[in-house]
Amino acid sequence: MIFFEKRINDEISKVLIDAEPQSLFEPARYTFANGGKRIRPLLTLMAADLFELDVEAVINPALAIEIFHNFSLLHDDLMDNADLRRGNPTVHKKWNANTAILSGDAMVIEAYRYIAKVPRHYLPEVLNLFSTTAMDICIGQQYDMDFEKRTDVTEAEYIEMIRLKTAVLIGTALKIGAIISGAPDRDADALYEHGINIGLAFQLKDDLLDVYGDPKTFGKKIGGDIISNKKTFLLIKALKSPGPAQGKELKRWLSAKDFDPEEKIAAVKNIYDELNLKAISEKLIEKYYLASLDCLASIHVPEGRKKDLINLSESLMYRDK
Amino acid sequence: MIFFEKRINDEISKVLIDAEPQSLFEPARYTFANGGKRIRPLLTLMAADLFELDVEAVINPALAIEIFHNFSLLHDDLMDNADLRRGNPTVHKKWNANTAILSGDAMVIEAYRYIAKVPRHYLPEVLNLFSTTAMDICIGQQYDMDFEKRTDVTEAEYIEMIRLKTAVLIGTALKIGAIISGAPDRDADALYEHGINIGLAFQLKDDLLDVYGDPKTFGKKIGGDIISNKKTFLLIKALKSPGPAQGKELKRWLSAKDFDPEEKIAAVKNIYDELNLKAISEKLIEKYYLASLDCLASIHVPEGRKKDLINLSESLMYRDK
Repeated sequence: MIFFEKRINDEISKVLIDAEPQSLFEPARYTFANGGKRIRPLLTLMAADLFELDVEAVINPALAIEIFHNFSLLHDDLMDNADLRRGNPTVHKKWNANTAILSGDAMVIEAYRYIAKVPRHYLPEVLNLFSTTAMDICIGQQYDMDFEKRTDVTEAEYIEMIRLKTAVLIGTALKIGAIISGAPDRDADALYEHGINIGLAFQLKDDLLDVYGDPKTFGKKIGGDIISNKKTFLLIKALKSPGPAQGKELKRWLSAKDFDPEEKIAAVKNIYDELNLKAISEKLIEKYYLASLDCLASIHVPEGRKKDLINLSESLMYRDK
Repeated sequence: MIFFEKRINDEISKVLIDAEPQSLFEPARYTFANGGKRIRPLLTLMAADLFELDVEAVINPALAIEIFHNFSLLHDDLMDNADLRRGNPTVHKKWNANTAILSGDAMVIEAYRYIAKVPRHYLPEVLNLFSTTAMDICIGQQYDMDFEKRTDVTEAEYIEMIRLKTAVLIGTALKIGAIISGAPDRDADALYEHGINIGLAFQLKDDLLDVYGDPKTFGKKIGGDIISNKKTFLLIKALKSPGPAQGKELKRWLSAKDFDPEEKIAAVKNIYDELNLKAISEKLIEKYYLASLDCLASIHVPEGRKKDLINLSESLMYRDK
């Protein structure tokens, strides 16, 4: 695993390294250098390793996926007007909106240039999967923005949104590794579904950590989603089934303009507590996690080869940041 | 020709026709429906026809090029804060900036989905050419934006900018048609260079029409580039070689905040006239046009088959709108 991570970080640091002009490509390099867990490219390498393919054969599509992921964060941060990403100023704050737009566009194209390096035999299938997923991510982001203007978002709509915005890229990262390994279709599809379930659990865990994370280990401020009225799983559930007093109080906080942030966080969290939403979330996370293990179990490789993927999934489920 | 145009317009009207959600794809359809000359996809079909390939075989990459072109106009209009495109409100004006960003992103991905439909045998070459060109266009747009902050842009820098921003997509539209026709590399390359020269002449003609076009036929207001201090070929030449009085007056107009638009247009045009820039531009356009004909002449197909391409080029050179 540590070797895989090192390979990815080595290669990411070379992406667009000498590209000119600086005004276009420096923001892209800044974005890549801003770290992150590199989970998606790691999964592509692990998928190849699962089917006993040399991971060097999937480095390029793994990078394509990481580049696209960083593009989507860059444009999402601009659209959400976020100031910080992993503790550093976002591109549109450090530079400006036009720089964020055009550098992001260049990153999408660069991602496709890495996809184009896939062996000819697998290129059409990988290219189609990558584009379908890229489009899904745009659709997921659009739903996420549309949801901000609604108070009647259902749990099913929310799960579909995070499936598109987050889970499909995790599934695709894995499936591309399987395809280039020449894995049978049903194994590649099972690995994709494994990724979808991990992705759903991962995003639900993200929502949960924002409220219930330990400030000492979480790395960013607790309650950011509550302050910004973000339509997380917790808020959607709370809006759906509050008691009369809770519903009234929640709506008051959602429409409040001047408020003490700590007071709002405590009040909304209190409603979540009363509705037992932490346990309800954890149960749903567990459900997706178990489903992901079922998918993995169905794949026709020796059980011992699945250990790394299981360990990674487990660490994502039970992380505290 | 009319049949080719009809085929393109028929197919463009079907792109993303049933795609959901509306909030993401309606702006894309609005952009496609806003017309334009469809020159780029037309050139792809004409290139196939030049090499006696059924044009149906290149409809998909032709659409990819037109979709990408429309994406680049959409994001450029946002970055330039333009209000109108072909007389209609731009996407960020009709909707908002976020809609323009995300719909544009979706259009890039849709363009690649059409590229993915290219026959397997030609896919790697077409995909690489398309991505290289897409990146060139981003670089060209970045130069264009960078030039706005400079007063020392050289003629060579300007020509390189319009080569990247405008000409390479014209060359690529033609070359993709040649590649899929199985044309020899040297013919495909010559057709690309034909397109580059046509593209350069086309953009220089655009700059010229903005100042010297006939208001009755031009279709948009004369002098828009002068009002916005756009670094066109004319302005770059004027900044380079003015007389002492002209240089002072030009700088005064470029920095003027409150002015009568008609007065500024007349004054700057007067400087252009004194410097004989209309004739200098026309001579350069002629040079690129003749070079484009040389490229076409070197291609190994019967001269009669080149007639449509020559007619189209000529109509682009001597157009009045």
